[in-house]
Amino acid sequence: MGRYCFGVDVGGTTVKLGVFNEDGDLLEKWEIPTVTKNGGKKILPDISASILAKMEEREMEREEVVGVGIGAPGPIDSEGTIYDAVNLGWGTFSLKKELQILLNLPVEAGNDANVAALGEMWQGGARGYENVVLVTLGTGVGGGVILDGKILPGSTGAGGEIGHLHMNDEETLSCGCGNKGCLEQYVSATGFLRMAKEKLAAVDDPSSLRKTDPADLTAKDVWDAVKAEDPLALSLAEEFGKYLGKACANIACVVNPEIFVIGGGVSKAGNILIDYIQKYYKQYAFHSCRGALFTLARLGNDAGIYGAAKLILS
Amino acid sequence: MGRYCFGVDVGGTTVKLGVFNEDGDLLEKWEIPTVTKNGGKKILPDISASILAKMEEREMEREEVVGVGIGAPGPIDSEGTIYDAVNLGWGTFSLKKELQILLNLPVEAGNDANVAALGEMWQGGARGYENVVLVTLGTGVGGGVILDGKILPGSTGAGGEIGHLHMNDEETLSCGCGNKGCLEQYVSATGFLRMAKEKLAAVDDPSSLRKTDPADLTAKDVWDAVKAEDPLALSLAEEFGKYLGKACANIACVVNPEIFVIGGGVSKAGNILIDYIQKYYKQYAFHSCRGALFTLARLGNDAGIYGAAKLILS
Repeated sequence: MGRYCFGVDVGGTTVKLGVFNEDGDLLEKWEIPTVTKNGGKKILPDISASILAKMEEREMEREEVVGVGIGAPGPIDSEGTIYDAVNLGWGTFSLKKELQILLNLPVEAGNDANVAALGEMWQGGARGYENVVLVTLGTGVGGGVILDGKILPGSTGAGGEIGHLHMNDEETLSCGCGNKGCLEQYVSATGFLRMAKEKLAAVDDPSSLRKTDPADLTAKDVWDAVKAEDPLALSLAEEFGKYLGKACANIACVVNPEIFVIGGGVSKAGNILIDYIQKYYKQYAFHSCRGALFTLARLGNDAGIYGAAKLILS
Repeated sequence: MGRYCFGVDVGGTTVKLGVFNEDGDLLEKWEIPTVTKNGGKKILPDISASILAKMEEREMEREEVVGVGIGAPGPIDSEGTIYDAVNLGWGTFSLKKELQILLNLPVEAGNDANVAALGEMWQGGARGYENVVLVTLGTGVGGGVILDGKILPGSTGAGGEIGHLHMNDEETLSCGCGNKGCLEQYVSATGFLRMAKEKLAAVDDPSSLRKTDPADLTAKDVWDAVKAEDPLALSLAEEFGKYLGKACANIACVVNPEIFVIGGGVSKAGNILIDYIQKYYKQYAFHSCRGALFTLARLGNDAGIYGAAKLILS
């Protein structure tokens, strides 16, 4: 008799699901839509129905299923309570208990960014390490801290909220969180693009980036120009590296990880990102943290289902 | 039969020792000199002899002693290995094992600042909390992070090294660590005094602080002038609060504690310190961390022996 577990990653538009064996192999993955209307009331019943259908389809007995792990966007404490996950329409309730009741299976829950970090530790870029910081560079900047192989959830579920490290006293624009000068305002895809546009408008230096209509410019275009050694793009990469390297140096003074994993859409630019981050990390890091490793995330959009499964298997 | 444990706090000039009952009451404390010559070879034998003598004096049986906890200045990993504690003359070795061999009793070891944080959590300013950050404002700035009631040692023993958070890109002077712009350069007793002297030299504003020969000025003088509402001292208090409040906001984005405890010699200035730190903390903190509490340390120089004892009792 095999033993299995399910990993669930709840996003704003789709829910990703995966079924794993106990060795951590992903046997199958699929998606269902996230129905956020009516306060997101259908989300958990939909997840439950999808898992029960998959168990039937694969002829799994209930006792063969170790449990279900779930990651969701919002602060989630160590008891599995989620607080005001506004973009799912959810208020505050025990995500762990509600899903447990629906499935009659053991459930563990965690914040999606933290759960992704756990996934990258388990089967991704940080495999073999137990003290890991994941930096997710997407539309915003998320993060997760793993210590001794376990998520650091934080006392109000805000552990690893590194996108909101304060980096710049001079910033006049507000971050989505309401503060000014957050890391996310510079190194997210959106933030990096804003820096690029501001620079293109502020200086007259020739740049291959000027060939693209500013409205169509993407963070990928800028990183492609960095690889082609466009001088203006190179100066943007230095700024990016300085913001993120300095932020990682400060994170290291607090939790002193073995390895930083860089993920999210922006990380598709590849190892060149690591070079720029590490250059400034080494400059700003406290001496005994200077040896921390940097690597790219490896699981892409599957990090969430891997980490969710690991919540149950650990 | 009672049960007891010993807490040991190794400093550069004296070793503090305490004997506790299992309820955490300090029954007696005493000190012995720290003999750092010859690579600090005598330190552990001296500690061992002092503990064994105390056991004899108090007629304690070996089986009545739960064990000995020890805090020392230097990076110490979760296995009790200390790395290059230069100010004790020590290299790298297993502090835990060496003392265990000398005493034939269970031993646990931790970094002194982290151990002090554990003490403040257990019987000091953060009693009743389990997720705590201690900020120690002395000649330098130390710190310790406690999560779920346990020390975060960090992968190379640099967990909670918050004195070396990078705060200022414009700094031209070097910190003791070799970097420029570390938190310690502004909010330690030394750093705050330097800011005061620089300000007194840079502006002509009248201030009660000018009555003291700059060479004799102390951080206490400045805080006394803040309490007397001296305008120049008030502006220094704002700078202090901004540096430390911002640093705590960034720490909160990483580990999201319930409470910050402010200790060390500078904290004798009292609650006025908290007011200035909290003002800026609330400005810079991520919204879901904004409710973190701030309090003064309560155990003074005994935090180390309390925390060391707790290493064994936990």
